[in-house]
Amino acid sequence: MTSTVEVEKGATIPQRVAREPTRTPVGQLLLGLYEKYRGLEQGRVADYIPELAKADPKWFGISVVTLDGYEYSVGDTTQAFTIQSISKPFVYGLALEDNGEEHVLSRVGVEPSGDAFNAISLHPATGIPSNPMINAGAIAAAAMVKANGTAPFNRVREMFSRYVGHDIEVDEAVYRSESTTGHRNRAIAHMLRNFEIVAGDPEGALDLYFRQCSLSVTCRDLAVMAACLANGGVNPINGRRAVESQHVSSILSVMGSCGMYDYAGEWIYRVGMPAKSGVSGGVIAILPGQLGIGVFSPRLDERGNSVRGVNVCADLSRSYSLHMLSVPNLARSAVRASYDATLVRSKRRRQREASEDLTSFGSRIRVYELQGDLVFASVEAFSRLVTQTFDRFDLIAIDFKHASRIGEGALAVMVDLVRILQEGGKLVALSQLAHLPELGARAAEDHSLAVFSDEDLALEWCEERLLESVAPQTGDSRVSVADNELCAGLDSEAIRRLESAAKPRRFEARATIIRAGESGESVYLLVYGGVSVTVDVEGGRSARVATLSAGMTFGEMALLGENLRSANVSADSDVECWQLTVDDLATLGESDPGLRATVYENLARKLAGNLRCANAQVQALSG
Amino acid sequence: MTSTVEVEKGATIPQRVAREPTRTPVGQLLLGLYEKYRGLEQGRVADYIPELAKADPKWFGISVVTLDGYEYSVGDTTQAFTIQSISKPFVYGLALEDNGEEHVLSRVGVEPSGDAFNAISLHPATGIPSNPMINAGAIAAAAMVKANGTAPFNRVREMFSRYVGHDIEVDEAVYRSESTTGHRNRAIAHMLRNFEIVAGDPEGALDLYFRQCSLSVTCRDLAVMAACLANGGVNPINGRRAVESQHVSSILSVMGSCGMYDYAGEWIYRVGMPAKSGVSGGVIAILPGQLGIGVFSPRLDERGNSVRGVNVCADLSRSYSLHMLSVPNLARSAVRASYDATLVRSKRRRQREASEDLTSFGSRIRVYELQGDLVFASVEAFSRLVTQTFDRFDLIAIDFKHASRIGEGALAVMVDLVRILQEGGKLVALSQLAHLPELGARAAEDHSLAVFSDEDLALEWCEERLLESVAPQTGDSRVSVADNELCAGLDSEAIRRLESAAKPRRFEARATIIRAGESGESVYLLVYGGVSVTVDVEGGRSARVATLSAGMTFGEMALLGENLRSANVSADSDVECWQLTVDDLATLGESDPGLRATVYENLARKLAGNLRCANAQVQALSG
Repeated sequence: MTSTVEVEKGATIPQRVAREPTRTPVGQLLLGLYEKYRGLEQGRVADYIPELAKADPKWFGISVVTLDGYEYSVGDTTQAFTIQSISKPFVYGLALEDNGEEHVLSRVGVEPSGDAFNAISLHPATGIPSNPMINAGAIAAAAMVKANGTAPFNRVREMFSRYVGHDIEVDEAVYRSESTTGHRNRAIAHMLRNFEIVAGDPEGALDLYFRQCSLSVTCRDLAVMAACLANGGVNPINGRRAVESQHVSSILSVMGSCGMYDYAGEWIYRVGMPAKSGVSGGVIAILPGQLGIGVFSPRLDERGNSVRGVNVCADLSRSYSLHMLSVPNLARSAVRASYDATLVRSKRRRQREASEDLTSFGSRIRVYELQGDLVFASVEAFSRLVTQTFDRFDLIAIDFKHASRIGEGALAVMVDLVRILQEGGKLVALSQLAHLPELGARAAEDHSLAVFSDEDLALEWCEERLLESVAPQTGDSRVSVADNELCAGLDSEAIRRLESAAKPRRFEARATIIRAGESGESVYLLVYGGVSVTVDVEGGRSARVATLSAGMTFGEMALLGENLRSANVSADSDVECWQLTVDDLATLGESDPGLRATVYENLARKLAGNLRCANAQVQALSG
Repeated sequence: MTSTVEVEKGATIPQRVAREPTRTPVGQLLLGLYEKYRGLEQGRVADYIPELAKADPKWFGISVVTLDGYEYSVGDTTQAFTIQSISKPFVYGLALEDNGEEHVLSRVGVEPSGDAFNAISLHPATGIPSNPMINAGAIAAAAMVKANGTAPFNRVREMFSRYVGHDIEVDEAVYRSESTTGHRNRAIAHMLRNFEIVAGDPEGALDLYFRQCSLSVTCRDLAVMAACLANGGVNPINGRRAVESQHVSSILSVMGSCGMYDYAGEWIYRVGMPAKSGVSGGVIAILPGQLGIGVFSPRLDERGNSVRGVNVCADLSRSYSLHMLSVPNLARSAVRASYDATLVRSKRRRQREASEDLTSFGSRIRVYELQGDLVFASVEAFSRLVTQTFDRFDLIAIDFKHASRIGEGALAVMVDLVRILQEGGKLVALSQLAHLPELGARAAEDHSLAVFSDEDLALEWCEERLLESVAPQTGDSRVSVADNELCAGLDSEAIRRLESAAKPRRFEARATIIRAGESGESVYLLVYGGVSVTVDVEGGRSARVATLSAGMTFGEMALLGENLRSANVSADSDVECWQLTVDDLATLGESDPGLRATVYENLARKLAGNLRCANAQVQALSG
């Protein structure tokens, strides 16, 4: 699933670049940023505990993970270090899952304090910490993680393992050192106990907090964690959920307003991505819906943020306009194609009369093929498109084959739209909801709505309902050979000779009449029942090419010298037909060239009709 | 352009609903919110000046404007009121346009103060106001608006007129009252002068500030202004630019972090849209890329925000998941269809040999049709798709017909991708850049890259380059009637009789040979030169159906009894052909039915080939 462009120790990068330059635009840009900032030696490595001071100030890694799970990595992206404050938003998310939003908001605020990272920032009257990104708020959040049958810290570690996609361990040396020297945090914990923000012994929460800060991660872990948040809470590499989707925007909100300490406002202004930094030199940044970034370099500026980390994020944001508030118009692209049943027909071939009815009344069927990720604005615009043309159709088919996902808000609009259509007396057919289980489930609750696995079946259903309303449909009837589409214009003597040359055949329902890939030298004239023409597609499935009824022909390509069958034909019902071999027709043609000419003229007319349909479909699909 | 669902005085709404319910999902939801909150009478109308106290506490309007310029309005959406603090982010935007970002940042910060709306919040040492949403920062921003040949306030008024789409005036009574009683703001202005944040006489900036706050707007004006910011700075109703796009994310950033005073953090957490409120009861909220919201109701909560305004925005956000950080995966939908030249051919029909070469080598041409709004993530994923299959093609055609817009970051990736392809020795054809002038301009600078108005021409160019590389192409050559596709299998005697029945014709280059809609009773056998078949499409333009060369046939549908021409045929070069009428062929057929049978068999074979191409194209386009 994951591919890596470059995972290398910094020192060897330039050689590698020279040998094998990466071909992706983003890979090239990241290499450029690595080269640009590897010489930047501003800032100081944190040294308040000896273990952090051991970090090599030269360490420098950049990782970007996309939402289809691709990883770009340059430099020291597999070097382990402790996560420190970057743990805070993630543990806050676990507190939200365990306690619900309102309970958590009653214990920890979400207002930026404008203070430095180690400020205490408790509300003077209530003791509520300003936000969960300062130490006080993070300890309060840690205190809310529930045991659920195991030690709370085990749940924290499991959570981080879901985010990074592998097991994750505490750096014991760092943990012991933090725990021994963390007097200020101990003071905060007891102050929180004093205000009853933390219940019970505050040492438990404090210990969990020290451990969560001492978890060992790499730069690429950070980027994967960031990508989980960008991806609505799902790890884009293994597809597993790391955090409930409903809490993702809350986590990102506190990162956006408070994640970079007293630099938060300017960070959002200039970089425009929710972010979090840690004292060991890590930075994560998230562009929701697009990517996750991790940078690691231990030298810190006076605010406690990695100097190279801040620079790389700012450059990346500027180079690719990654500001979360620079959003293109999302309203335009929901409709991939739109047409009515006069232009595009289902694959059920119709007898002349039904076909003429569809030509006359097919505009009462409206088909919309939707595409892409459906957001509120695109579905809202679609809902107006549909309701503004409300009086022009009676049946509507909405196909989601090319719609990859539907957001919650978009889903709400779509469900309301379907209800409004039904209330207005319309018949609604939805198809290809595989990517949209929410919609399928809701549609299934309503019996006046039809749901199909395939857009062609949805269109056929609309055609059937329309034809029923136009004229009562006769059942399957028997026709004579003279009524076959290949026999138009032949006199009765010619028909008699053709019948005597051909062989009558019967097939039971579900029998296979023709198999793709086999050789075949005859054409079949259908006089009773129906058949379906299918082709085999990937995954052992088959796709319908056409459904035919009495009076129609199949296997006719044999008449043009094609002696390998290109499709399967199977009986939908009990079937009767006349089988005419190419040789029989040639023999007939020798004695009666006019018969042969008429059959080929009819064949050409049939193909011309099919071609016209296919061209209309190309037109409709090209939009 | 703009349609309005409901613009009504509140009192009459329920009757109207009963008479004619709106059919759109969003229209129905807004009516529901109006009904839900019209009875909510919490909060107090501002009364610090008598003019504001005159507001009717019952006034209540909700407007939503989409990025295609559609307006939903419910209630008192045409009632005039003064804009007050909602003017602040817009004047800040003008200060950015006049002075550039760095200069403005040196005079006004962007950090939330966490303070109430009328706090002074100047940095104790520098006097720099925390942010432009508090009065001090707004007055400092007003002081930076330049005269540019007219009074600075005229420029402010013109700017607001661009945002709302009509002239906008000061409410003189409110202005006089604000100016007379604004002692606190006067104190702030002089403090700013003291710190030299404001240069010269502070009364000028102060007067501009009082006037900007006294501009008269309506609820729907607010929604249109919000929609301009959601739309990258362009008014979605009249299509005119209100503010330079580069400053939009800056304006939205300060609204996001500071727009709702000391409620800003919780607002972003719960509602998730950059917003601004005013003391007269207005609220605007922006979901970038999707919509603008305006709500008006004069009763304020203790923080100075409209009670109903806050409730309506929160409900709307919850109902439709409008949180700006709830973003779907945007990486998936860039490619609408992808195929190679073995599946889909250009509309230039090839002679047998060239056609076989395209069948053998067509997989070296790769075509991508892109779709939708191209954001960084979707183009990034596309860039990998292309570079991962780098060795499998020599020519690449990228079509943008269905791509409505390209973001700055996406553009950067696309430009780099094209460069990487060219450096790798690939030939690149781009088509349909009409919506993407930036890309067209950049591509035009590079001579090793071809840009086309049409994806079919781009594909033809790729085919020509491929065929040149496979085998040297011979020029237009003359063929005999016997070599025509309709004459395969005819013996020389039959050819002779056919030639004597037909009439030789010559046409000069650019001559029209067949006109769509005219009656026609003959088929043309091309023996020298080339013709193009076109159909008339909307806007007086024509679309190419096929380009044919010697040995091919046109007008052949006449042989199937279609006596109205469905397309135009014109000579691409000097042309020679044989014109055979349907009657002539019928006469020939009477004496030689075998000739007629062979011609129709050939016609059927030709149509079968065209049908196969069309079906492949349907397949490719359906994805």
